[in-house]
Amino acid sequence: MAFLDLLSSRIVVAPMAGGPSTPELVIAASRAGALGFLAAGYKTAASMMAEVEAVRAAAVEMFGVNVFVPGVPCSEAEDLVQYLKSVGADPENGTWDDDDFVGKVTALLADPPPLVSFTFGCPEAAVISALRDAGASVLVTVTSPAEALVAAHAGADALCVQGFEAGAHRGTFVNADAFGQDYGLLSLIGVVGSVTALPLIAAGGIMTAGQVQAAVAAGAIAAQCGTAFLRCPESGTHPRHKAALADPRYTTTTLTRAFSGRPARALVNQFVFDHPDAPAAYPEINNATRALRAAAAARGDSERMSLWAGQGFRSATDLPAAEVVSLLTARA
Amino acid sequence: MAFLDLLSSRIVVAPMAGGPSTPELVIAASRAGALGFLAAGYKTAASMMAEVEAVRAAAVEMFGVNVFVPGVPCSEAEDLVQYLKSVGADPENGTWDDDDFVGKVTALLADPPPLVSFTFGCPEAAVISALRDAGASVLVTVTSPAEALVAAHAGADALCVQGFEAGAHRGTFVNADAFGQDYGLLSLIGVVGSVTALPLIAAGGIMTAGQVQAAVAAGAIAAQCGTAFLRCPESGTHPRHKAALADPRYTTTTLTRAFSGRPARALVNQFVFDHPDAPAAYPEINNATRALRAAAAARGDSERMSLWAGQGFRSATDLPAAEVVSLLTARA
Repeated sequence: MAFLDLLSSRIVVAPMAGGPSTPELVIAASRAGALGFLAAGYKTAASMMAEVEAVRAAAVEMFGVNVFVPGVPCSEAEDLVQYLKSVGADPENGTWDDDDFVGKVTALLADPPPLVSFTFGCPEAAVISALRDAGASVLVTVTSPAEALVAAHAGADALCVQGFEAGAHRGTFVNADAFGQDYGLLSLIGVVGSVTALPLIAAGGIMTAGQVQAAVAAGAIAAQCGTAFLRCPESGTHPRHKAALADPRYTTTTLTRAFSGRPARALVNQFVFDHPDAPAAYPEINNATRALRAAAAARGDSERMSLWAGQGFRSATDLPAAEVVSLLTARA
Repeated sequence: MAFLDLLSSRIVVAPMAGGPSTPELVIAASRAGALGFLAAGYKTAASMMAEVEAVRAAAVEMFGVNVFVPGVPCSEAEDLVQYLKSVGADPENGTWDDDDFVGKVTALLADPPPLVSFTFGCPEAAVISALRDAGASVLVTVTSPAEALVAAHAGADALCVQGFEAGAHRGTFVNADAFGQDYGLLSLIGVVGSVTALPLIAAGGIMTAGQVQAAVAAGAIAAQCGTAFLRCPESGTHPRHKAALADPRYTTTTLTRAFSGRPARALVNQFVFDHPDAPAAYPEINNATRALRAAAAARGDSERMSLWAGQGFRSATDLPAAEVVSLLTARA
């Protein structure tokens, strides 16, 4: 794939939906020799394409767009309503949606960016082949060997392997609630590499040049970093979220479904602590808690915001993205 | 430390209590240029010293002995009894013990091996300094930055950093039941390296030469591998356990307290599946289920044995230990 040759720095700036990923971040990453991703999640297809245009207008040739693959509605309506009431969210807002998956794929087919990556699922083979015929390379995010086999079988060009250490939502889509879906990145590169020869982009907790080199030594072609860029001036991360990442009050992360109904790694704050038993109901819980989270952000209450962070978050700096790329690619 | 210079292969064969670690495995590892550890856990001090003598008799100069640090008795007696009854174990056997910690330390002080490592806790500074005065270097197993600080403050010479991917018992001893004690190895090397300059030996899911190089690239001085050696002819692993590691019926691992009352990574079998809610009560549950596990092993029932395994278990081979060392140190 062309993008592999162009990926001289071996650094991919992860798509971070909900604010952090901006055209400015993608542009800055590109100018620094890294590969940036726009995050289509939670946006309309039109907003997504406007961001694609903004990136193209800056003469960035190589970049990607990440799209969420919809799941199925929560079948445990009672659990869902009870949980939403317990956190003070309006159950009326606990609705399912598909994040306009078809609208986004249709728009990307009509005017394809160089790369399209998928998260939360694997599109049907026909979608992947149509995107490739239209000129895009297709990546699928996986968290286990089983998911890697699904993605390889569907025709993915490459895989993003997301380790357990990664910040924000886990991409898990096969046996999500079963035992054993908790691969650490180094193991994941190994076990996925033993079932497929597809190129692997490694994600999860990578914050230093040594860790980038480690991912490559283990068999990945590149490292995808998100948290490392969360505090950059080019990132649209909420200022309270940026501040929390450097706040000594927050010392650790955990996987939680409290905010969204889908496991995601966040700083442990009061909301996470208070709600360890959220049911599996994405995006219903995410939609229902949106107003709560926005209100908390507006009043500066970081104890009730979703403070996504990977395990190495304490190393995130507020330097410009180009300098972060430079740190991540420094020679030992 | 002298052992750092001698560790030319950068491979440490992990101590694996309960059978797998034998003097033969330590001797074979040493002859292949790796560093082996005897596992004192569950043994008497006299048995431990007999193994030390066996290794010395083979002219092995550099090796270590791993000792369990005792915790505190379970304070939830009712939960414990209820759990033991539910699995068919005799609650009378659910007793606490200290694995003869003082007896073992006393014996090692009197006749010290080159290295002593500790797991499940950090000994008092006086114990560490006494061992060092007697001529041993002291390692402490840690799973978080907080534990690394405790061990560094107590005077450890080096740390074994155990990632979430590792097979068998987690060494976690600070805030074991709190959120966020689930560091993947690559992240763990980073976060521990940012709070201490002590040499780090990386453990957890390392099965290939690429993963060894990755651990070193990330900042470790060596890789400690356990599961990679579990099937070796020199390992005392139960034959049914060896067979299960290669059995397609078993596809994944999980952390479980079902067998021992302390989180440990095992192949997901019926016993793990049936008992997801074991209380934190080590070694009480371990002692009480010993008869059940032995009976299951005797009748070849791998669904009720504790099949410890790291996340990369499927790559474990039945080659001699020297050949495994050779595979782990192969150039890319």
